[in-house]
Amino acid sequence: MSGSGNLMDFLDEPFPDVGTYEDFHTIDWLREKSRDTDRHRKITSKSKESIWEFIKSLLDAWSGWVVMLLIGLLAGTLAGVIDLAVDWMTDLKEGVCLSAFWYSHEQCCWTSNETTFEDRDKCPLWQKWSELLVNQSEGASAYILNYLMYILWALLFAFLAVSLVRVFAPYACGSGIPEIKTILSGFIIRGYLGKWTLLIKTVTLVLVVSSGLSLGKEGPLVHVACCCGNFFSSLFSKYSKNEGKRREVLSAAAAAGVSVAFGAPIGGVLFSLEEVSYYFPLKTLWRSFFAALVAAFTLRSINPFGNSRLVLFYVEYHTPWYMAELFPFILLGVFGGLWGTLFIRCNIAWCRRRKTTKLGKYPVLEVIAVTAITAIVAYPNPYTRRSTSELISELFNDCGALESSQLCDYINDPNMTRPVDDIPDRPAGVGVYTAMWQLALALIFKIIITIFTFGMKIPSGLFIPSMAVGAMAGRMVGIGVEQLAYHHHDWIIFRNWCRPGADCVTPGLYAMVGAAACLGGVTRMTVSLVVIMFELTGGLEYIVPLMAAAVTSKWVADAFGKEGIYEAHIHLNGYPFLDVKDEFTHRTLATDVMRPRRGEPPLSVLTQDSMTVEDVETLIKETDYNGFPVVVSRDSERLIGFAQRRELILAIKNARQRQEGIVSDSVMYFTEEPPELPANSPQPLKLRRVLNLSPFTVTDHTPMETVVDIFRKLGLRQCLVTRSGRLLGIITKKDVLRHMAQMANQDPESIMFN
Amino acid sequence: MSGSGNLMDFLDEPFPDVGTYEDFHTIDWLREKSRDTDRHRKITSKSKESIWEFIKSLLDAWSGWVVMLLIGLLAGTLAGVIDLAVDWMTDLKEGVCLSAFWYSHEQCCWTSNETTFEDRDKCPLWQKWSELLVNQSEGASAYILNYLMYILWALLFAFLAVSLVRVFAPYACGSGIPEIKTILSGFIIRGYLGKWTLLIKTVTLVLVVSSGLSLGKEGPLVHVACCCGNFFSSLFSKYSKNEGKRREVLSAAAAAGVSVAFGAPIGGVLFSLEEVSYYFPLKTLWRSFFAALVAAFTLRSINPFGNSRLVLFYVEYHTPWYMAELFPFILLGVFGGLWGTLFIRCNIAWCRRRKTTKLGKYPVLEVIAVTAITAIVAYPNPYTRRSTSELISELFNDCGALESSQLCDYINDPNMTRPVDDIPDRPAGVGVYTAMWQLALALIFKIIITIFTFGMKIPSGLFIPSMAVGAMAGRMVGIGVEQLAYHHHDWIIFRNWCRPGADCVTPGLYAMVGAAACLGGVTRMTVSLVVIMFELTGGLEYIVPLMAAAVTSKWVADAFGKEGIYEAHIHLNGYPFLDVKDEFTHRTLATDVMRPRRGEPPLSVLTQDSMTVEDVETLIKETDYNGFPVVVSRDSERLIGFAQRRELILAIKNARQRQEGIVSDSVMYFTEEPPELPANSPQPLKLRRVLNLSPFTVTDHTPMETVVDIFRKLGLRQCLVTRSGRLLGIITKKDVLRHMAQMANQDPESIMFN
Repeated sequence: MSGSGNLMDFLDEPFPDVGTYEDFHTIDWLREKSRDTDRHRKITSKSKESIWEFIKSLLDAWSGWVVMLLIGLLAGTLAGVIDLAVDWMTDLKEGVCLSAFWYSHEQCCWTSNETTFEDRDKCPLWQKWSELLVNQSEGASAYILNYLMYILWALLFAFLAVSLVRVFAPYACGSGIPEIKTILSGFIIRGYLGKWTLLIKTVTLVLVVSSGLSLGKEGPLVHVACCCGNFFSSLFSKYSKNEGKRREVLSAAAAAGVSVAFGAPIGGVLFSLEEVSYYFPLKTLWRSFFAALVAAFTLRSINPFGNSRLVLFYVEYHTPWYMAELFPFILLGVFGGLWGTLFIRCNIAWCRRRKTTKLGKYPVLEVIAVTAITAIVAYPNPYTRRSTSELISELFNDCGALESSQLCDYINDPNMTRPVDDIPDRPAGVGVYTAMWQLALALIFKIIITIFTFGMKIPSGLFIPSMAVGAMAGRMVGIGVEQLAYHHHDWIIFRNWCRPGADCVTPGLYAMVGAAACLGGVTRMTVSLVVIMFELTGGLEYIVPLMAAAVTSKWVADAFGKEGIYEAHIHLNGYPFLDVKDEFTHRTLATDVMRPRRGEPPLSVLTQDSMTVEDVETLIKETDYNGFPVVVSRDSERLIGFAQRRELILAIKNARQRQEGIVSDSVMYFTEEPPELPANSPQPLKLRRVLNLSPFTVTDHTPMETVVDIFRKLGLRQCLVTRSGRLLGIITKKDVLRHMAQMANQDPESIMFN
Repeated sequence: MSGSGNLMDFLDEPFPDVGTYEDFHTIDWLREKSRDTDRHRKITSKSKESIWEFIKSLLDAWSGWVVMLLIGLLAGTLAGVIDLAVDWMTDLKEGVCLSAFWYSHEQCCWTSNETTFEDRDKCPLWQKWSELLVNQSEGASAYILNYLMYILWALLFAFLAVSLVRVFAPYACGSGIPEIKTILSGFIIRGYLGKWTLLIKTVTLVLVVSSGLSLGKEGPLVHVACCCGNFFSSLFSKYSKNEGKRREVLSAAAAAGVSVAFGAPIGGVLFSLEEVSYYFPLKTLWRSFFAALVAAFTLRSINPFGNSRLVLFYVEYHTPWYMAELFPFILLGVFGGLWGTLFIRCNIAWCRRRKTTKLGKYPVLEVIAVTAITAIVAYPNPYTRRSTSELISELFNDCGALESSQLCDYINDPNMTRPVDDIPDRPAGVGVYTAMWQLALALIFKIIITIFTFGMKIPSGLFIPSMAVGAMAGRMVGIGVEQLAYHHHDWIIFRNWCRPGADCVTPGLYAMVGAAACLGGVTRMTVSLVVIMFELTGGLEYIVPLMAAAVTSKWVADAFGKEGIYEAHIHLNGYPFLDVKDEFTHRTLATDVMRPRRGEPPLSVLTQDSMTVEDVETLIKETDYNGFPVVVSRDSERLIGFAQRRELILAIKNARQRQEGIVSDSVMYFTEEPPELPANSPQPLKLRRVLNLSPFTVTDHTPMETVVDIFRKLGLRQCLVTRSGRLLGIITKKDVLRHMAQMANQDPESIMFN
């Protein structure tokens, strides 16, 4: 322990565990960054020594790309497997394939070559449960049997899922995005991105989606991708030993997750940039893009949708939109904003109730009950019985000539000889009217059940249910406008663009706009939302309607409360998340926030050369601060540096074991030279190597808005407050968060400990 | 002047010009930000007072969107007008339309209804100069006459352009992107984005592009859009009075500029984010996207290309690419990287020569000479005679059945009965071989002439010439691979995917990949490059080849030097630009960089209560520092705060004029209470209001890499260095830049004064 006393000594890692963090603690971004630079410097200087070291340095430089490639491959594969499994298990609720029970309905009927696409429903190899069990395919008893089987399977899946989550990986529940945001902002939650979470979340995700609950797999896929990122980054010391670098990989993994969820690589990168990430340097942007692309192409080569399409909802519209349609689009935006507000308020209220009342003690029962209600209500209505993504797909679709869906049951003009993709507006048939009723009921049901579903102890995403709500509302508005335009094409608003025989309104586009609006209202995404939707449609043509709806929905929702669902859940759980988007506009100064406050005992400090080992050990035992400022003496209180608690403990332990003559009465000194001591005093202990000589300081007059900015941009853990060199107090990230909560009239005690 | 002494006093703006900056100075981002927060706070609190104030606050909140809308509209309109004018004037070099001289060749022949598209060249209303002047359309003398007219027009346009730039707006020259990057990073260059620059740059851009010089309009369009942004932000006090907020608008304007240049709004936003901007909060991202979309749609409604397309080069390929093709794509990437390196090195060497030798004194002559050489060499070769963007368009195109271009002169199989968009690979005809020769010559010419063109005293962009070089090389490689595959389809590498009669190689795709590679090599763009190209093709299908080429080209080019062309020009001109992308990896400490150095006279400081007005005035006169640290006394050197030179001067001037009893012997004090003075001393001057009580400090042991990070992320102007509260020195942005230059073995004196 004869440290030469400069800052770089830490990096020789004289004792283990230096540079790691405890669970539920915040990392120090600046320190992580400088540790990485040191590592890089060491490798660069070594690489000139021998060819082997040079190759090692090249491998190190490439490891970032390798990690991205691996993440892309694994995330894409997992997404593909999940899609296939969900497909099979969703169909299993209705029936089974005789030729091979692991085939889904569609695969089953493909392999039995005798049927064409139109005869899909009559494919003999696929048997409904009633056909298989009692050999009946029609009639009331068959219906009831199928109904019961549907409910039973749903309950079985849900029960399995919630049990697996409870027993093996409690962190696998929820969408994961609030926690990932918190982790990326520099918080440590051990095991949240672990291998067990990865495995259990993947399996239970399949189960819950198949069970027909009102949830999506998109959010959890981001969590799954981040688990992959965490796994691969643990294989490379560059990332496993540096929490800052690891977070760069996780940001990219989140992009890959959205990329496979929607088949939208650019949207995924922007989602990671806008919504999830905290520290996003440009190098990460480029690598995220790479990971997102690899993931998307891996998924495509697995081809789970059987159509070689990259995107989840492929749509192709044949008619442009017209200026007058902006009005219904903006209305849909308003609806989306209102839905977002309603959903966030109700869901947070319900989740708070779950946290505080007895309800939270029976998570399995809760899941079973919600699943039972969902299955019972959903089965009779064709729009809720099928999987939600199929529903959205159908709602987005334009009615072509070959479309057999109920939604496309228009009354055709018998004299029509137009090409198939340019069908004029037609009067609605009976099917459309029935569909409207069913859609309205499905909409109400979805709105209510989603509020209770999101937040249960199972993996659950929000994107798909939100989009479904919007798509249903949008499609209904679209059909309404279409029929209005058909029957009243002489009205002024229609006269200019909607002559009889023209194809002027595309209800599918309204569904899409509605979906964007609702998703925007709930998540408050902006650019990434529009870009994801743009990648789905593949044309700039429809970007203006989407943007109008997204902007409106965000404005409307923001008027009722600035928080999106993820921020709301972060606050509910009290994670120490310092949002980059929140603007701090109060006039407080650093002196108002720093501790000790007036009347509190003075700050626990170390002096540079007058405390004994025992004094320090007592101080460490009696307090639980993460570190202590070091001052010249208690009288002058001039700041010298900052010592981390963890490193102090390790250094003292080490010295007591290894260094001779160190006893409880030994004086500890942080200066270069030992202090002058009486002749018979024990050997002093030099601790300069654990002293950070460049702690971050602000003056007591610094406005808090600047302090918040510094904490955000530099990712600090704590900051010392001085006035003309004299130490006055300390501000930690937790103090900043508490102060912000206080200023926003929230409970400052809700912030989790860091 | 009876200040109450808190920080907020500045904002009452007791004397004019507080908060503005001098020309060629650096702004203080933190201060700008806190000034904006104060303004916002004031408006919010006022808005509760009356309805009128509430409406005003709403207008203020909306003004950001209004500015974006206006920028989008103007940038789109200007781009459309420039396109139309260039079209007409380029054709004017060859001939004139008899029905209306302001019609371009294409418009002229459209209006003369008698001709179909195929007969375009025979349209009677369009007359070549030889037809008009001597009534000959064929023969040697007609050719020579046309040749001469071509050169004459080119010289006239170029002369007009360079004269206009010299006389009216010297800042209108170049691409403008290096300067815009510098301005966005917080530097003040007055007039660079002024109205005159806007006007002259627009006019001269049309002239130089029409003159046939090897330059593009894309980079200058970004400058034009930023001028629009600056103009509109000067209309709203929110932006005109705050240099930080103004830069947010300029970032968005840059996005709008790229958006109209390529018809790629998302690519434009990412370009602004990746390449140009410095401080890019998420709110700006969303607004940039809005501005970029408005601009793109304005341009589309002007419809300068006459095809309702948004994009500059619309392409549609009919065949996928194959794994084996990655090899030539990567080769093109290598070519792009080498071209980038060659271009940057040669161009910088030539520009340095221009700056340091007599050459720079004759800019008009230089432009005339280069134009003359360009015109003389370009005319005989059909691939250099036409405008560069037409050339790129043709090179990108897939050869359809109706294509009449020489590049598509393949020998058709007479028995072919395939649909028009799925033509198998065919042997090349005579035309293709001729085209190959001409392309090779054009390629060499372009490479050489572009090096000399970029940097002349005229507006000149680099995107189009770079893309042309890449597209020519790519098309040649593509045709090579195609013929190889046709004639040797039994080779192992072709056997799997290229059977006879299949359409397996698309030379146009190679051209596109080559263009991306060369553009990437020169500018080192990554994500934005791929996204712009993606928006041109509109499909994810071809993103892997583009990405492979872009990655390779960046790696190859980076191996020879990290700087892209814009950074190289920034360094050449010595702009104080602190690049976010550069990583500082040296082990120096703040103490090595701060001034005063060893042996230098001590720091010029103010004491808190012992200097007279005269002392301070002498200090201000004798030094040219931007500000002075204020300490307790010369002995203790404990730091109190920082006073800006500009504000000190204004405050003293003001006090001398307005406040009675202030004479040269008056003691100045920065404390709350006046110091105790002898009985007969003159009235002291309180200057607490110009004292910044929260100057930014670091300790002398802080690693420079942290200091650089702080300067970058917080946008500081200067930072004080202390050791346990005692002031040791100061580090300005200029010191940081000089130190970085020194560490990179560059001349530290080349950094421009700030």
